[in-house]
Amino acid sequence: MLNKNIEVFIGCEAEYEEAGIVLYGAPYDSTTSYRPGARFGSKAMRSESFGLETYSPYQDKDLTDLKVFDSGDLELCFGDSSLALEDIERRAEAILEDGKLPVLLGGEHLVTLGAVRAVFKRHPDLHVIHFDAHADLREDYLGARLSHACVLRRCWELLGDKRIHQFGIRSGDREEFCWGERGHVDTRRFDFQGLAETIETLKGRPVYFTLDLDVLDPSVFPGTGTPEAGGVTFDQLRDAVELVCRGTKIAGCDIVELCPGYDPSGISTATACKVLREMLLALGEQRQVII
Amino acid sequence: MLNKNIEVFIGCEAEYEEAGIVLYGAPYDSTTSYRPGARFGSKAMRSESFGLETYSPYQDKDLTDLKVFDSGDLELCFGDSSLALEDIERRAEAILEDGKLPVLLGGEHLVTLGAVRAVFKRHPDLHVIHFDAHADLREDYLGARLSHACVLRRCWELLGDKRIHQFGIRSGDREEFCWGERGHVDTRRFDFQGLAETIETLKGRPVYFTLDLDVLDPSVFPGTGTPEAGGVTFDQLRDAVELVCRGTKIAGCDIVELCPGYDPSGISTATACKVLREMLLALGEQRQVII
Amino acid sequence: MLNKNIEVFIGCEAEYEEAGIVLYGAPYDSTTSYRPGARFGSKAMRSESFGLETYSPYQDKDLTDLKVFDSGDLELCFGDSSLALEDIERRAEAILEDGKLPVLLGGEHLVTLGAVRAVFKRHPDLHVIHFDAHADLREDYLGARLSHACVLRRCWELLGDKRIHQFGIRSGDREEFCWGERGHVDTRRFDFQGLAETIETLKGRPVYFTLDLDVLDPSVFPGTGTPEAGGVTFDQLRDAVELVCRGTKIAGCDIVELCPGYDPSGISTATACKVLREMLLALGEQRQVII
Amino acid sequence: MLNKNIEVFIGCEAEYEEAGIVLYGAPYDSTTSYRPGARFGSKAMRSESFGLETYSPYQDKDLTDLKVFDSGDLELCFGDSSLALEDIERRAEAILEDGKLPVLLGGEHLVTLGAVRAVFKRHPDLHVIHFDAHADLREDYLGARLSHACVLRRCWELLGDKRIHQFGIRSGDREEFCWGERGHVDTRRFDFQGLAETIETLKGRPVYFTLDLDVLDPSVFPGTGTPEAGGVTFDQLRDAVELVCRGTKIAGCDIVELCPGYDPSGISTATACKVLREMLLALGEQRQVII
Amino acid sequence: MLNKNIEVFIGCEAEYEEAGIVLYGAPYDSTTSYRPGARFGSKAMRSESFGLETYSPYQDKDLTDLKVFDSGDLELCFGDSSLALEDIERRAEAILEDGKLPVLLGGEHLVTLGAVRAVFKRHPDLHVIHFDAHADLREDYLGARLSHACVLRRCWELLGDKRIHQFGIRSGDREEFCWGERGHVDTRRFDFQGLAETIETLKGRPVYFTLDLDVLDPSVFPGTGTPEAGGVTFDQLRDAVELVCRGTKIAGCDIVELCPGYDPSGISTATACKVLREMLLALGEQRQVII
Amino acid sequence: MLNKNIEVFIGCEAEYEEAGIVLYGAPYDSTTSYRPGARFGSKAMRSESFGLETYSPYQDKDLTDLKVFDSGDLELCFGDSSLALEDIERRAEAILEDGKLPVLLGGEHLVTLGAVRAVFKRHPDLHVIHFDAHADLREDYLGARLSHACVLRRCWELLGDKRIHQFGIRSGDREEFCWGERGHVDTRRFDFQGLAETIETLKGRPVYFTLDLDVLDPSVFPGTGTPEAGGVTFDQLRDAVELVCRGTKIAGCDIVELCPGYDPSGISTATACKVLREMLLALGEQRQVII
Repeated sequence: MLNKNIEVFIGCEAEYEEAGIVLYGAPYDSTTSYRPGARFGSKAMRSESFGLETYSPYQDKDLTDLKVFDSGDLELCFGDSSLALEDIERRAEAILEDGKLPVLLGGEHLVTLGAVRAVFKRHPDLHVIHFDAHADLREDYLGARLSHACVLRRCWELLGDKRIHQFGIRSGDREEFCWGERGHVDTRRFDFQGLAETIETLKGRPVYFTLDLDVLDPSVFPGTGTPEAGGVTFDQLRDAVELVCRGTKIAGCDIVELCPGYDPSGISTATACKVLREMLLALGEQRQVII
Repeated sequence: MLNKNIEVFIGCEAEYEEAGIVLYGAPYDSTTSYRPGARFGSKAMRSESFGLETYSPYQDKDLTDLKVFDSGDLELCFGDSSLALEDIERRAEAILEDGKLPVLLGGEHLVTLGAVRAVFKRHPDLHVIHFDAHADLREDYLGARLSHACVLRRCWELLGDKRIHQFGIRSGDREEFCWGERGHVDTRRFDFQGLAETIETLKGRPVYFTLDLDVLDPSVFPGTGTPEAGGVTFDQLRDAVELVCRGTKIAGCDIVELCPGYDPSGISTATACKVLREMLLALGEQRQVII
Repeated sequence: MLNKNIEVFIGCEAEYEEAGIVLYGAPYDSTTSYRPGARFGSKAMRSESFGLETYSPYQDKDLTDLKVFDSGDLELCFGDSSLALEDIERRAEAILEDGKLPVLLGGEHLVTLGAVRAVFKRHPDLHVIHFDAHADLREDYLGARLSHACVLRRCWELLGDKRIHQFGIRSGDREEFCWGERGHVDTRRFDFQGLAETIETLKGRPVYFTLDLDVLDPSVFPGTGTPEAGGVTFDQLRDAVELVCRGTKIAGCDIVELCPGYDPSGISTATACKVLREMLLALGEQRQVII
Repeated sequence: MLNKNIEVFIGCEAEYEEAGIVLYGAPYDSTTSYRPGARFGSKAMRSESFGLETYSPYQDKDLTDLKVFDSGDLELCFGDSSLALEDIERRAEAILEDGKLPVLLGGEHLVTLGAVRAVFKRHPDLHVIHFDAHADLREDYLGARLSHACVLRRCWELLGDKRIHQFGIRSGDREEFCWGERGHVDTRRFDFQGLAETIETLKGRPVYFTLDLDVLDPSVFPGTGTPEAGGVTFDQLRDAVELVCRGTKIAGCDIVELCPGYDPSGISTATACKVLREMLLALGEQRQVII
Repeated sequence: MLNKNIEVFIGCEAEYEEAGIVLYGAPYDSTTSYRPGARFGSKAMRSESFGLETYSPYQDKDLTDLKVFDSGDLELCFGDSSLALEDIERRAEAILEDGKLPVLLGGEHLVTLGAVRAVFKRHPDLHVIHFDAHADLREDYLGARLSHACVLRRCWELLGDKRIHQFGIRSGDREEFCWGERGHVDTRRFDFQGLAETIETLKGRPVYFTLDLDVLDPSVFPGTGTPEAGGVTFDQLRDAVELVCRGTKIAGCDIVELCPGYDPSGISTATACKVLREMLLALGEQRQVII
Repeated sequence: MLNKNIEVFIGCEAEYEEAGIVLYGAPYDSTTSYRPGARFGSKAMRSESFGLETYSPYQDKDLTDLKVFDSGDLELCFGDSSLALEDIERRAEAILEDGKLPVLLGGEHLVTLGAVRAVFKRHPDLHVIHFDAHADLREDYLGARLSHACVLRRCWELLGDKRIHQFGIRSGDREEFCWGERGHVDTRRFDFQGLAETIETLKGRPVYFTLDLDVLDPSVFPGTGTPEAGGVTFDQLRDAVELVCRGTKIAGCDIVELCPGYDPSGISTATACKVLREMLLALGEQRQVII
């Protein structure tokens, strides 16, 4: 007897019961203001992961040693952000309830809000570590408060001051930077300077880790909605991801803003897959103690 | 002294006061369910129109003989369809108030609803002629009632039975076709058969003409969100557009669903520009009597 | 509890036991002589089928009324055609043994040979109906006898004279055409003339139907390895597919040579999906009596 | 001992002495006003011709039966049209002096002028048959008289009234059409109506045949600088090319305006190659008597 | 009353009278010898600038604080370089006459010559700082003296020895390098070493700054006619641009050789926009004293 | 009299007799497991080399000073790896017999095996220096022993332990790395650390140098079948290539895995051409003593 076609991220073939980590995709990009297409990010990562090895020579570990489950993409309603965020929040909650770590694949950055809401309910002392080219701290964007450009501002409303730690930021309007500097969030410009210290101060506290892939330089990651020259290299990002995933108590995380359609060479998707592999391997180590 | 850079559709260089026809763009695509990018349609048409001549050897007329004004694109809020539709409606109303014909450049098909609302207020006896590959008659789409897939259904709620006349339809779910056949709308499948008769029956009545460019075969119009094989040829469409624009009392019209990003060859945009030129030239004839 | 991510062709969600038709993909293209990439065809059809409706306004039927099972792609060994053909043959046999109709998604045209071998074992009186731009009747190609360019010649060795009926052929070397005309195969050039008569003569006999999508004109199907101007239109193909699938006793069939990478607009994949839908709907009718 | 790498159009492998037809490429596009890139046309045709068969099932003839020599591309000076045209003229003259037929591969349409000058010197009673979407009859273009948009006007200055016969024209400014209709040239709009009659009247007279490939519909020929919807089909063009090449005394000819860079699918280049094959095969028949 | 559609580089919305800096585009590329398309550079920068913020976190300044006017693109005659250069020169003169700084957006590198001629007339003691991958010092190119490959040689004829300071050069023929080393120009290979010293020696003297974007590594700037591996990073260029624009008395400047068509990801245009923003912000500081 | 069109890598225009280095292309990619297309690599390098200068400012040498012959591409049988490898081996032998250095242009990495076999016959003490992102040390790949993923393993079977020196390796399955570390091959991860020492130990011994271009970071070399983030920069590779080609006794070498179709910007091909130029110039120095 034949099996139905199953498509999961490479090496993520555990059964749900045994899994410590659960992938879920949020193919949403309705608020993208410049170039849409991040909706295709999670599917592309799953589909193109077969060009990747499960083994990492960086960490000397293999995805097949972990127990990761891939639940596929949510079916979200385009054009209605409230509804979409509710669906994402509900999925994250379900995963958390089963004692597993939810790893969200975007989609645009707004999807993070759904996941953070779910994690925050269980961890009111939650901190957020945020890698990104853009500050995403606007109060609203052309009238919309639920927008990718405001997502960290919405998280701040939930978490309060000094809970959000941004790295790699190199774009925003003046007001965003000024607002942040008034003590609301901790913004590091351009690169990962200060990350080790931040991690030190967060030791033992629950952390949500949101990774907007456009923190990478567009040379190695052209496939994103709003490319910003001057980003970090792949090796810098890989190091930083390992640092965060091993050094803090991750209670939820995501990878967002892969827009495969803008990169016919496929290197953006391949890079996103590799970042996800390194993230999962680094998370795998401590999975038993985190949640 | 130098002038600021002005960019208008070729041959549409009239001043507002003297113009009988006014172009306005609605770069919105947040509800697109399959492949987004129609937001770039209106801008691409304006930008690429310079590969086109102003003169039509089909109609032996020239755009420079008309008085058309190009007001550019609205700045719409992505992810909030209600807000976007209000802005479109308001712009259409302003144009109508000044006694000019509003010609809307999409954007996805949902934008039509804003324009129809404005025209309907002035013409409660309005009929809609609709060229499209898709019926767009769903009650809702994944929970959203403001969706490109429901736009003609929303128009029907406004206008009532037997006011919508569809041509070229070759895709939809079974329910859409069944609902329409219960006497709500007049749906012609696959091509323009019956168009001349329909126009005859609409003589003298105000008509809103909405043209979803995916009614064209994908061979000549690949650059659209949801290509459907088996469409009409350019010459069939050109004839039909002329028929409608000369044969009825147009009170508003639009061209939607050009998605230039999916067509690196540019033939879709070039074709859209040519259709718009033929539409404007056919409309031009009767501009003094319509509104 | 969450489910693993399942990805099937739209509307093909039956369980194996209940299914009358079974899809299986053969992502192979190692013998492609001009432009490779047909290996991505089956996956692209599955992935992009979600831009299609399950309902056909042409046949007034819906895929959800049928019971079709999608078994996904075989994992084939690139560069070893014998091995790959064995795997394909074995899969086809397994499906036939369970009393279901095997529908193969290519891949390059060579994959047809594996399926024909399996069907021929059960039906020694098998005929082949072959739609293609190319005759594929070479004795060998640069020394290789297992080549896409020779696949119908290999089928002929199995089936014998007057069993292969080709339509739409508009390319080949002189020798291929001459050889065929010596009574070995029945080749109709350029279009489907004579198809109805052929079907009449095959009434009641088992038929393998192999559809190389490059029989379509490159305008509507640019995404193929060896595009040949002067092909049939989508509507001509749709009619012909319906004719074959309703008019003969299909014992196996395939759709091959979609090469999605050469068509960034995606219209080729969308067209392939639509052809497959129409094929499945036409096959569905008689499924209970065929095998 | 090994041979240097030789690259010629498929089947055009004759030695110069024995050849009746000589191909020469003019990779020039400096005056292209909309989208440049026709400079890559001749090279692409040579390079991609290997996806084509040498045998034509339309004419039942094979390129290998002819004696065609491919002299490659001229090295032309970009940005200096006078210089480039001189080089082209000189090459055409050299070929004519050796009693062979010069077949020019463009490049933009301006290159035709160089060839027509050379042929005109030998045949003062020369007529031109011109297939194109565009009239190319402008007096000048933004001040330049040596421009693709003026090339037939420049030919007219050489040849005089009633010597130029245009077919398929569907674009131009009003003045071009008006000027032509004053008895200067014979312009047929949109298709090949009247071609057979024209050929009849030209029987026995020397003809230069210039084929701008954008006469084809952009659906099958998207790869060109200025695509114009509403063109002829490949089969219509193939018939017309055969008609001209068999029915008149060709003294020189060209194929221009393939712009491969705008068509990632490659169907434009494949179509251009097939048109050239059919042209050469039709020319081959009468090669001994023409020059 | 509605306004005509105006399209300017983001944040450059000053009125002409109040502006200190004036942008003007020269969409010319007729002498490009390898891959044309730089004609679309200035328009793409204007159009895509809306993906950029007006605020620079590098300089902590905002474009909206400056007074920059965008006069759009000149309408240049393709294929006639003399004519095109005259138009550019005339435009630069007009801007200079009004006491404003002309900032030219290419176009291929030849356009610089028009601007340098205009600036040189006012500043006979002019120096040129030149960032580029290519030396552009040829005496002629295939016979043409007005060619992108000769543009700095033509500038040298105007300015004389030791007035041109090149940085980042990593390509040229041997003769170009040798000629330069004979004391004619000051060429620094590969990077910006020596830039600070050069700026020191130019203190107080008028400088024309020409920036060929292919000085950037092709990884971050693939969209150019002749990509050369081994270039500088974005951050290196950004620093160097700031150094030049703040450290010298700029009398005119340009950004050339963006060829957006070769980069479907759009990162090249995004990077060009960001470089222009940083350049304008650095220039803005001293605008009152320069001219 | 005109010459047939000859197409060679720029500056490689020597006659065979006088040449010390001979280029030969192997357009094969049938075993590529992820994304095919390397078959187009050698042709693209030849064709696009005209965007490159023959002079290197890095080495201050010019290709025109060397005597390099370009024999073009072999005509290989797709889908039959044994046959293809035999053809490659035979060509390499012929070149070696004439006392010239064979430089192979791929194609996928499997083609190296043919060349190594030929060189090994003359040099049983042969070492291999291998630059690559991937270890290529698998025993078999999905059953195939002749696969790009196994090519260095096949070389090891020929040469024995400690003869293969790998650099830049950052991908493989765990087993490959483990097998290598058991003393079979010398694998350096991620970069060129240890290269100088390795070269020192190989002084005077014959070396085959195989360069898989995917050792480069995908940012500068996206056009390859299996891109792997985290690679070396162009300048690092250029230095390393010079080091190897000057520091060891090269008995054969190759450049493989350029897949131009995945990089519409062309920077991958341009980079490959530049690497080949630097390799040839570095090899040129010692050509008289090596073989």
